Amino acid sequence: MTIDATHDPALTSWVESANGHRDFPVQNLPLGIFSAEGLERRAGVAIGDFVLDLPAIAEALGDAWLDELAQPVLNGFFALGAEPRRALRARLSELLSDPANRDRIESALIGQSEVTMHLPAIVGDYTDFYVGIHHATNVGRQFRPDNPLLPNYKYVPIGYHGRASSVRVSGKPVVRPSGQRKPPEAEVPVYGKSRRLDYELELGVWIGRGNQLGEPIPIGEAADSIAGYSLLNDWSARDLQAWEYQPLGPFLAKNFLTSVSPWVVTPEALAPFMTADFARPDGDPAPLDYLAGGSDKPGLGLTMEAFLTTAAMREQGVAPLRLSRGRAADAMYWTVEQIVTHHASNGCNLQPGDLIGTGTLSTAAADGLGSLLEISAGGKSPLTLPTGEQRSFLEDGDELTITARAEADGFVAIGLGECRGVVFG
Amino acid sequence: MTIDATHDPALTSWVESANGHRDFPVQNLPLGIFSAEGLERRAGVAIGDFVLDLPAIAEALGDAWLDELAQPVLNGFFALGAEPRRALRARLSELLSDPANRDRIESALIGQSEVTMHLPAIVGDYTDFYVGIHHATNVGRQFRPDNPLLPNYKYVPIGYHGRASSVRVSGKPVVRPSGQRKPPEAEVPVYGKSRRLDYELELGVWIGRGNQLGEPIPIGEAADSIAGYSLLNDWSARDLQAWEYQPLGPFLAKNFLTSVSPWVVTPEALAPFMTADFARPDGDPAPLDYLAGGSDKPGLGLTMEAFLTTAAMREQGVAPLRLSRGRAADAMYWTVEQIVTHHASNGCNLQPGDLIGTGTLSTAAADGLGSLLEISAGGKSPLTLPTGEQRSFLEDGDELTITARAEADGFVAIGLGECRGVVFG
Repeated sequence: MTIDATHDPALTSWVESANGHRDFPVQNLPLGIFSAEGLERRAGVAIGDFVLDLPAIAEALGDAWLDELAQPVLNGFFALGAEPRRALRARLSELLSDPANRDRIESALIGQSEVTMHLPAIVGDYTDFYVGIHHATNVGRQFRPDNPLLPNYKYVPIGYHGRASSVRVSGKPVVRPSGQRKPPEAEVPVYGKSRRLDYELELGVWIGRGNQLGEPIPIGEAADSIAGYSLLNDWSARDLQAWEYQPLGPFLAKNFLTSVSPWVVTPEALAPFMTADFARPDGDPAPLDYLAGGSDKPGLGLTMEAFLTTAAMREQGVAPLRLSRGRAADAMYWTVEQIVTHHASNGCNLQPGDLIGTGTLSTAAADGLGSLLEISAGGKSPLTLPTGEQRSFLEDGDELTITARAEADGFVAIGLGECRGVVFG
Repeated sequence: MTIDATHDPALTSWVESANGHRDFPVQNLPLGIFSAEGLERRAGVAIGDFVLDLPAIAEALGDAWLDELAQPVLNGFFALGAEPRRALRARLSELLSDPANRDRIESALIGQSEVTMHLPAIVGDYTDFYVGIHHATNVGRQFRPDNPLLPNYKYVPIGYHGRASSVRVSGKPVVRPSGQRKPPEAEVPVYGKSRRLDYELELGVWIGRGNQLGEPIPIGEAADSIAGYSLLNDWSARDLQAWEYQPLGPFLAKNFLTSVSPWVVTPEALAPFMTADFARPDGDPAPLDYLAGGSDKPGLGLTMEAFLTTAAMREQGVAPLRLSRGRAADAMYWTVEQIVTHHASNGCNLQPGDLIGTGTLSTAAADGLGSLLEISAGGKSPLTLPTGEQRSFLEDGDELTITARAEADGFVAIGLGECRGVVFG
């Protein structure tokens, strides 16, 4: 991944809110789909507090403009692979940094508070992985104290298919699902509202150029299949999950809603923040040949955080409580490139706009746990909030927000925005 | 489900090959999407050895014609629910039985050998269930001899999400997938071609009118969500499955290909063949309230068969070997209505064109086993073929074909056509 002039830390934008912006300085330039009054769904770029309407600046984009950007979803643009994305980034960087362009495109800026964000792509298939080894260990320990990590974990990037139809963009209310749960002491299960509603802090990976059915993606080409990254919250009903998941895996415990943040942060934007290290300890089994190799720096140097705000906290003006903070690379046993290559290794076809979740990204640290199941030790150690409230799992009115930010010496930090949801009973 | 004049056993068609046809007499009238020389993908109806081009007879269909039938997929028509489907059936029955209509629509008939069939709908999500209790018991016994059926089985219609992108219409070559397998005696897994490739005899259910996210489908309304039925083969790599499936369920062992037969046989066509009995023994726990009720006759009186033809059998002119024969209702512990209601019971949204597999439909009889895993007892008891060949699992060159047929006293039998695939190495 090349680090080029678009990452120059001296670069500033004439969109003043971009300079020093937590998420969207001119070094980021993430893509998304928005609508606004009088504007149907269309492609845009986040810059500071604004969205830049791409079709409105088609002429200024010149050769970087493509008809695929005139669609109400980004699937077509994703399908084109990296080159057009790089060209668009380079041109946007020029347009938004050189004040000479201000008059030409300023009218295409719309305040983020005035737009509605949508899913960036039609999700053909959504797959959720389980590459957070500390999460897998923490959860495994609750079910199998003596043998938390199954024998396949260090060979197979474990994943399963999720539900595409219920993927929604950040902000969608989280309706507490009903389902079967079986209390340990009960003879038979009962059907009703979940009592153990949880979040899972994850990254979402958007597939760009995919593969044909029957044709694997070699590890050396996996990076070319990644169109970008969003935040992802795999809302989970733990009581439904515990009762239903054997032998075929999670189903209704997960498929009532999956939330993603609306902005797709490109591999180009993340280039300065990739790392060579990730959570595979020295001495562990080497990956099998088909999973070995790939980029020099496949690890994601993104610091992720989760915040909780209860209804009482909102009423009392108490600031959101940070539930966790940790670096994705410290959580992930398998890289995104390995995930992609493994997914296609049997010939399964990935398609532009497919969404892949990493799985819950917990670090080894006590303050780096990516779900309440882990934080409360399965409900045994409830969390005490600043209001005096306790939480083992999410209650109605709770708001859960995930963020991620990339920092590196000598570069301007960027962020993924946020993925949030409020629970309703 | 009403049995009306379209089921009159005295009804014959002026399309002579329809009369006495194994699958497609005038009492069936299944819908599909086909293309032919000079004809782009379009909706058609199978009648005898022919396909009736629906857009070509729009005028003759009169009020039964709808713009949704002019699409290259049936999702839009499925979304309309049962009423337009019934009206179309009634009108087609008239047109194809009364010889007075012959001159008017005969030119819209195309020989089935001259068309290419396609998936009837864009599959938004594909879910595979596990409602074949004898299959679940047979497979469970191989893993857990003392405890073959898990405690949740008689309460939860077990299902998991499959891969939508790799669903293909019957005839698609089955490319033997590669993947990780771990021989029992080996220290570490190896990556390579699957050695335990299997089929699974299933029914596919096409969703018609779906539900909004967050709004369950009551059992009394579940039948209205079913647009029709196809045959489904959930090709499975057993060696990959055994190594990867814990704890999140099957993934690469299944998602390299799922085959469905092209014709959608409607609930209306199956009305005379539905039964009150299915594979839930008296004395078993009653379904929880949300799964209780529904139609008086929710069981599928379809006799399903699987046939194997090896390359040597083809060369020697040996007839296909029937591997199994059994009635779906004798295999299914949960009805399709219960499947649909359970799937949406947490608010998960089903969409028109979604595909649901029943899971492998094995009966309790020795000749009613729906997979080679069961027939060969996990490879311990290979099958000897008429050629003297042995089979524990599928070999390259093997052709596997599934059929299903509905028969009932006083009615003309109908069939679902066939779902077939040849294995390539």
